[in-house]
Amino acid sequence: MTTHKFEHPLNEKTRIYLRVEALLNQLMHSAQFRDGIQHQLFFRSLFDLLEIFEQIQLKSELAKDIEKQRLNYRSWLNVDGVDQEMLLSLLEEIDEVHRNLMSAERFGQSLKEDRFLSTIRQRFNLPGGSCCFDLPALHYWLHIPIEKKTQDAHQWMETLRPLSDALQLWLKLTRETGHFKARLARLGFYQSDAEDANILRLSIPLEYGVYPMISGHKNRFAIKFIEFQSGQATGRDIEFDLAVCC
Amino acid sequence: MTTHKFEHPLNEKTRIYLRVEALLNQLMHSAQFRDGIQHQLFFRSLFDLLEIFEQIQLKSELAKDIEKQRLNYRSWLNVDGVDQEMLLSLLEEIDEVHRNLMSAERFGQSLKEDRFLSTIRQRFNLPGGSCCFDLPALHYWLHIPIEKKTQDAHQWMETLRPLSDALQLWLKLTRETGHFKARLARLGFYQSDAEDANILRLSIPLEYGVYPMISGHKNRFAIKFIEFQSGQATGRDIEFDLAVCC
Repeated sequence: MTTHKFEHPLNEKTRIYLRVEALLNQLMHSAQFRDGIQHQLFFRSLFDLLEIFEQIQLKSELAKDIEKQRLNYRSWLNVDGVDQEMLLSLLEEIDEVHRNLMSAERFGQSLKEDRFLSTIRQRFNLPGGSCCFDLPALHYWLHIPIEKKTQDAHQWMETLRPLSDALQLWLKLTRETGHFKARLARLGFYQSDAEDANILRLSIPLEYGVYPMISGHKNRFAIKFIEFQSGQATGRDIEFDLAVCC
Repeated sequence: MTTHKFEHPLNEKTRIYLRVEALLNQLMHSAQFRDGIQHQLFFRSLFDLLEIFEQIQLKSELAKDIEKQRLNYRSWLNVDGVDQEMLLSLLEEIDEVHRNLMSAERFGQSLKEDRFLSTIRQRFNLPGGSCCFDLPALHYWLHIPIEKKTQDAHQWMETLRPLSDALQLWLKLTRETGHFKARLARLGFYQSDAEDANILRLSIPLEYGVYPMISGHKNRFAIKFIEFQSGQATGRDIEFDLAVCC
């Protein structure tokens, strides 16, 4: 049965984390410059990231969250029945990621100081603003050999590695705390308590033709299923799988 | 010798036309939904077009311009030495494009009324706003079979065909009025008069490592060449080809 996977953040911080994860994935994917337009997605993702970095203190937030995970995993040291080898290796990974994060520059600092990127950033968000006459420097850059372009791209992305590593680790450990369980949304509606949860993960059979609208916060949430065709709440019972991740 | 092609509009209207042309090309190209992220470029281009349609009366502008071209080409009827067969066929093409343009809806009207597109448009421009939790309807749509997705895309694009045909014809005829001629920018600077011109087209050898910064209007323009590496105006003589299109 084909399913439709869905993730929903239960607080503003996790919402930003998931957005940044999506943007980093797009960046990586579009950095191949496989066709004449993929660069647009690359620069758009890069500039969206810079905008997020300007809005919130992502680095200190993430460092605090990684630290919390470290303390949590440390409390399992020397506990019977816990695989100590795996635990030590994980703690080592957390230590390294945390260290690199703390010694990193403010996220996006060197990207903001890059002359070429600053030149094109200001006009990139015009509707249709990626024409050669709006962005002559970008247009020139597009003509340089592909090896040089991917080299530039990797250099820019490399400055985001401490963020990327820390975010990936935090999200991986967070997602692992949840386990999918079968749930029933009677008449298309489901609500439940969650204790200090960060992310809801859903797996919904595609055949229902519905998507979820979720509201809630870390302690309580409600899911309403919407019919894709009509845009209205469904009145049908919907069976789905749900994982609550803390 | 590899060259770097460049186009510059000499008035605001042509600037919009070239932007719309670029967006329509992107739309067509990204409508293949070849990978997991190409849809982003598709919807971004579509919404950028809608934004432009809201800002200017593109349809009446374009109709006036096509009409001007029609009158101009009509004046060559029965003139000795002009290929009358080709001219008649061109006039027929202009008539058809003009007729379709006049009978078309206001550009973007049915796209604006499309429920699905309206649902996703409002959140699409958030930085990183294409996450599933921001746009659950879009996330569902991405899971439907590729045939249905391309069918939707073609249906949306079809509503823009009168615009696309008219714009392509106008730009083709306009570009054909110019002929590339060798020019020299002494110490990296070139200026000249243009009589009611719409577009400058440049072809610049890549080996110079420069891109043009152009200022001007329909009757006069100046080109300054900038070194890509330093971002500064070059002091070198630059040989390039230039076509002035009316």
